[in-house]
Amino acid sequence: MNSQILDQNSKTNKTIYKRACNVLTGGVSRNTIFRKPHPYYVATAKGSYVMDIEGVERIDFANNMASLIHGHSHPAIVEAVTDQLQRGTAFTLGTEAEVNFAELLIERSGTFERIRFVNSGTEAVMTMIKTSRVYTNKPKIAKAEGAYHGTYDYAEVSQTSDPSNWGGIDKPNVNRVVEGTPQGVLDDVVIFPFNDIERTIKILDQHADEIACVLIDPVPHRVGLFPATNEFIEAIYNWTRKNNALMVFDEVVTYRVNYGGKQDSFNVKPDLTAMGKMIGGGFPIGALAGKSDIMEVLDPRGKILRHPHSGTFSANPVSTTAGRVAMELFDKEAVLKLNVLTNTAIHQIEESIRIADVPVSITGAGSMFRLHLQANKPTGYREAYHTKEKKALINELLDYLFLEENIIMINTGACMFATTLTQNEVDRLSNGLLNGFRLIKPKLDQLN
Amino acid sequence: MNSQILDQNSKTNKTIYKRACNVLTGGVSRNTIFRKPHPYYVATAKGSYVMDIEGVERIDFANNMASLIHGHSHPAIVEAVTDQLQRGTAFTLGTEAEVNFAELLIERSGTFERIRFVNSGTEAVMTMIKTSRVYTNKPKIAKAEGAYHGTYDYAEVSQTSDPSNWGGIDKPNVNRVVEGTPQGVLDDVVIFPFNDIERTIKILDQHADEIACVLIDPVPHRVGLFPATNEFIEAIYNWTRKNNALMVFDEVVTYRVNYGGKQDSFNVKPDLTAMGKMIGGGFPIGALAGKSDIMEVLDPRGKILRHPHSGTFSANPVSTTAGRVAMELFDKEAVLKLNVLTNTAIHQIEESIRIADVPVSITGAGSMFRLHLQANKPTGYREAYHTKEKKALINELLDYLFLEENIIMINTGACMFATTLTQNEVDRLSNGLLNGFRLIKPKLDQLN
Repeated sequence: MNSQILDQNSKTNKTIYKRACNVLTGGVSRNTIFRKPHPYYVATAKGSYVMDIEGVERIDFANNMASLIHGHSHPAIVEAVTDQLQRGTAFTLGTEAEVNFAELLIERSGTFERIRFVNSGTEAVMTMIKTSRVYTNKPKIAKAEGAYHGTYDYAEVSQTSDPSNWGGIDKPNVNRVVEGTPQGVLDDVVIFPFNDIERTIKILDQHADEIACVLIDPVPHRVGLFPATNEFIEAIYNWTRKNNALMVFDEVVTYRVNYGGKQDSFNVKPDLTAMGKMIGGGFPIGALAGKSDIMEVLDPRGKILRHPHSGTFSANPVSTTAGRVAMELFDKEAVLKLNVLTNTAIHQIEESIRIADVPVSITGAGSMFRLHLQANKPTGYREAYHTKEKKALINELLDYLFLEENIIMINTGACMFATTLTQNEVDRLSNGLLNGFRLIKPKLDQLN
Repeated sequence: MNSQILDQNSKTNKTIYKRACNVLTGGVSRNTIFRKPHPYYVATAKGSYVMDIEGVERIDFANNMASLIHGHSHPAIVEAVTDQLQRGTAFTLGTEAEVNFAELLIERSGTFERIRFVNSGTEAVMTMIKTSRVYTNKPKIAKAEGAYHGTYDYAEVSQTSDPSNWGGIDKPNVNRVVEGTPQGVLDDVVIFPFNDIERTIKILDQHADEIACVLIDPVPHRVGLFPATNEFIEAIYNWTRKNNALMVFDEVVTYRVNYGGKQDSFNVKPDLTAMGKMIGGGFPIGALAGKSDIMEVLDPRGKILRHPHSGTFSANPVSTTAGRVAMELFDKEAVLKLNVLTNTAIHQIEESIRIADVPVSITGAGSMFRLHLQANKPTGYREAYHTKEKKALINELLDYLFLEENIIMINTGACMFATTLTQNEVDRLSNGLLNGFRLIKPKLDQLN
């Protein structure tokens, strides 16, 4: 514990939150960190361990919502960024750092021919949708009910649909996430049920002449964190080929699943891919990558600039340097090792589920998984949907883990692994969950 | 020159760009850095001096498009960030850094009651527009012709209007900036001529029931970098009070103008303000600030969450720490001193204009100004508009400054000052411009 932390001993999570409430709406800048009765504030973090302002240390299985593939304060990233700091963090000129990083990402992937960096996953998805519209000259996008793709209006529609408004599964309703979203946005979005080939194709067919792109997160966290089937992706791909549309992937979260992203698993490949989170090495980033003839609409050398696009901090040398180092370390061997450890964790947790005798199932892919408080793994958004009672119970489980077992998970009941985790932390997770399952078992049995 | 730079001596700006063209569309991630025949790549930067990969040092008057208020690698910022790096850069929990920074910004401003941090100016403007829609339950926004507000579709409409498509000044056309922008976006944007009270009010009146907010950059760079008049702002303010709409400011660039932003100059104040650029201390950031009853729509504690909003890197402790240190250093005295130096520069350049006897004028506010290749200062976007010939001539001037005088300006002919500049650099700027004016005088006289 360094002196700075000792100095802060008079501060508590509660007192900092009290100050926060006077300056930040609801006391937070990201709803993600909000918890009742107050959020917790980090003093210092190293590897997979996060110490809060009151000196309590917790194991981190959330890794800033999947963005820290090497945990906290990785020495190689800290060193590279510390060096870059001395040489500047942002310029009106270019840096070699952005070129080096783009070369590395293109080398990893068979489908990336050209890249453009932005500042967040939200910006990456927005730029991908706008690029699709330019290339196809069509206005609409299609996306899966329940899928989260950041906060761009078109991308967020129907992300939070619930039984009161989701409508028939043959034609899921197009619902606002944010109040006041213009009707024009809703009119330009088509919603389909993830992994449901027959219904999806029928829905897409109804807008065949107007769809610029079909937007897919290949392992959509909020839908239920289960992978798209190869058949589903092939059906979408074939439909887009026939109908002059693009198939575009949001791999902001899922790029971690394989060396070249979740797309490595499929026979057919996306035209464009949005990335973010882990490729920033812990710093703000987003990226759009894909076929050069499509990306060309962004080319400033063109006679007509079809898609003018800039960004003050895009491709800044801190994010691109940290990202490059993080991705160099996340080589094929590291990806495999991390996926194996994650798989071990899943098996151990399944054993905890059996021992506690609770109706819980696990879905996931690569280095991520999500618990569901139901015996059968969900196969769609509506099956994975948390009723109010289920949400309360998952909160009870996660609060128990956080406060009693000192384990941080994502508020959906998901874990996003980092290479700094070892068997030791996995054992604590499966033991902690065993205790947690036993705690909620009476209520859980009543629910199911 | 450190060893790393010496190692790179075999690399040239041209060879790096050649590599860049194989991986980045058009060889760039931001059109801002593009120049013919190739961009330049930074090796290292300190204060107001930037050295490129070939060892050429230039004075920086662009400061990454106004985002570096203390120039490059400021020791206090480097120290604070270096310290934070050891303790982590991003968490699924909060940090005291975001609270400290929010407190500081609120203290600076009479109109900020609550803040939310995001990752860029683009995200800040998008969140501000969405928040306005929620609060008013109306779909449209009004914005000035030619004004740049980032890359969110609604905010960018008519930013690049030209004589072939801008229509009558009584009702400026609503024009796509990016091809394929849906008609629904255009239908929800109203365009008015900046600083033109009579026409603007008439235009707003035609959409009185539908406008959520009137979006104003109080010193819009692309319109001509001249300030909104107090009368114009009052007229907009009064109109919004009568019509149940919000007056919202984009101060991403202009927050530098006074201690509490350009808004300090006006009798009436905006309901919401978007910030970015300089408040990140050289790191990616954006922020939305304003009245607490409006910001409340973002509050996660509400029974109904009217505006769900999060962001993986929002309020990260690196950007908020660097930003806090930068803003602490940019105190009232520093603001005043920088504005005085900028004013001195303007006077010296006006002297250069007189000596060279060229039809050039200067507009600006606070620590920023822009040259116009015309004798009379423009008072509107259409007067400041660069014809092809004028654009070629400003490029010739800026290329001369960059290549022969080793001076970096923004590609519109603008300078955004930093506190690291001194009289010495100002003298080089006014002398360099004198030489540049003499060079382009024959062509310029022909144009005017």
